[in-house]
Amino acid sequence: MTRSLVLAAAQLGPIQKAEGREVAVGRMVRLMEKAHRMGAEVVVFPELALTTFFPRWYEEDIANADHWYETALPSNETAPLFEAARKYGIAFHLGYAEKTPDGHRYNTAVFVSPGGEIMLKYRKVHLPGHKDYDPIRKVQHLEKRYFEVGDLGFPVVRAPVAGHEVNVGMMICNDRRWPESWRVMGLQQVELVMLGYNTPSLNMDNRGFEAHHLRVFHSHLSIQAGCYQNACFAVATAKAGTEDGHELFGHSIIVNPQGEIMAQATSWGDELIVAEADLGMCELGRTTIFNFAKHRRPEAYGRITAQVGSEPPPAWNAARAAE
Amino acid sequence: MTRSLVLAAAQLGPIQKAEGREVAVGRMVRLMEKAHRMGAEVVVFPELALTTFFPRWYEEDIANADHWYETALPSNETAPLFEAARKYGIAFHLGYAEKTPDGHRYNTAVFVSPGGEIMLKYRKVHLPGHKDYDPIRKVQHLEKRYFEVGDLGFPVVRAPVAGHEVNVGMMICNDRRWPESWRVMGLQQVELVMLGYNTPSLNMDNRGFEAHHLRVFHSHLSIQAGCYQNACFAVATAKAGTEDGHELFGHSIIVNPQGEIMAQATSWGDELIVAEADLGMCELGRTTIFNFAKHRRPEAYGRITAQVGSEPPPAWNAARAAE
Repeated sequence: MTRSLVLAAAQLGPIQKAEGREVAVGRMVRLMEKAHRMGAEVVVFPELALTTFFPRWYEEDIANADHWYETALPSNETAPLFEAARKYGIAFHLGYAEKTPDGHRYNTAVFVSPGGEIMLKYRKVHLPGHKDYDPIRKVQHLEKRYFEVGDLGFPVVRAPVAGHEVNVGMMICNDRRWPESWRVMGLQQVELVMLGYNTPSLNMDNRGFEAHHLRVFHSHLSIQAGCYQNACFAVATAKAGTEDGHELFGHSIIVNPQGEIMAQATSWGDELIVAEADLGMCELGRTTIFNFAKHRRPEAYGRITAQVGSEPPPAWNAARAAE
Repeated sequence: MTRSLVLAAAQLGPIQKAEGREVAVGRMVRLMEKAHRMGAEVVVFPELALTTFFPRWYEEDIANADHWYETALPSNETAPLFEAARKYGIAFHLGYAEKTPDGHRYNTAVFVSPGGEIMLKYRKVHLPGHKDYDPIRKVQHLEKRYFEVGDLGFPVVRAPVAGHEVNVGMMICNDRRWPESWRVMGLQQVELVMLGYNTPSLNMDNRGFEAHHLRVFHSHLSIQAGCYQNACFAVATAKAGTEDGHELFGHSIIVNPQGEIMAQATSWGDELIVAEADLGMCELGRTTIFNFAKHRRPEAYGRITAQVGSEPPPAWNAARAAE
């Protein structure tokens, strides 16, 4: 039997700082309705989908940022989303800021069954940006202030989705640029990677000369390479458009295990894109070029887990002398 | 001072099985002359540049394949290449089949100074294909028969090149599809990756449904992602065209640390492409988005070195029960 699944990326346009969760949830419910009309069985919402991208706003006292976090899911405000999923029989991925009962804060995503059960939770590992207020930056990027590094690794689970068993995993935003994120999931035979992002169109670091026109290219490049090299599908969903004057690029995509883009959002607003995924396609890479058991050579990969930062290489003469 | 270097990929057209090394070397010397006229300071020749891609030919007794291997470098046949490098003051990268004095066989590349000194040697780690004759395949791919897995890791060295100190590393062909190869060198601050390849236009595995039109895309995707994610340049040089009826794709490229293609070969024959590399560009990625010391999280990467093959994930219910 063909293991076929209709996937959807539910891109969200901007959510302004002053807008409450009910605005975002209302828009997501409408995207759920559209997903139902378009036959989607899995819907992927972006990172931090319930609020504006608040890590651009500095708070000296982190307690003043508490209103950006969820302490329960579903909550009164998010219940309509869970109800829509149940009504339409759609599984969904949702990114949000999580505050745990014991006070830990994470940039989190969950994969929820149509029945409202949380089938998988992921907490962002690769937090970009910085911890303290940075006077050089025009716009702050305080993820390292507002979140702890995720403590769940990159888990993959075989989940029941629309009558199939599907190996699903998640990453969030900056994780997609790191081949390690993809490989750790590839080593668990992931078939579908769900990921949300809020990525500024302009890098406001102001220290380099990164070309702004390459920002979307870099995002797509990382996702397409990750899918190809790990023989999986990905649904990568943006929050897009201008939030309080700060522009986020859209270009949500659905990618197949050959690294091909199957569908792409072309607006900067709420937009649903869908693609039918034949999960059997994951077998090809996994059993041929990327048959890991046959071809990987961990004895040559030691540095990847043995060191964090890079180290300068020896000079040629020194290396020669050591021979 | 700007650390600028003119890089060249010296793509070779086909070398037929019946052709001797003197044919290949003569063509390479002409490419060296062209490289000199075009101002190149580093020239990268392909994998197994001295002979046809012999792993497509089966030999029951490997001793019958001995004539494909080099036991010394330079040798009488390869001396003219070293002489041309000296004459023009060009450093070069050469791929060849190596047989060591104690009988080991490797798919090897060296980086040679204009003075003829071997500044770095690499032996291919990711050998594709198979060890024994495979009756299903229309064309054999016997790299696992003819070569041992490289025993040098992915070394990087700071080498003197055209008045600069440059962190150089090498990979060969299939290595480029494996993000581990790139990362291990990125962790050594590699600035220039040199790689040669012999890649068939058609996958002759005959087990899957890989789209032949994606073969070049996959090659470029892997190289561009590797350069972007490790903030380095790459010169990727093909042996191209039809060897005894077997087609190899060309499309040699030079890529910058933003993952952009700076130059691309468009023929299937001998062709030299050049690009000027500002090595200072490597700093941007290394000090911002890909500041490894700040952002990498090896505690989440354990599987990359702890396991070779992939493992199936737990079923959702089991995972839930384990919580």
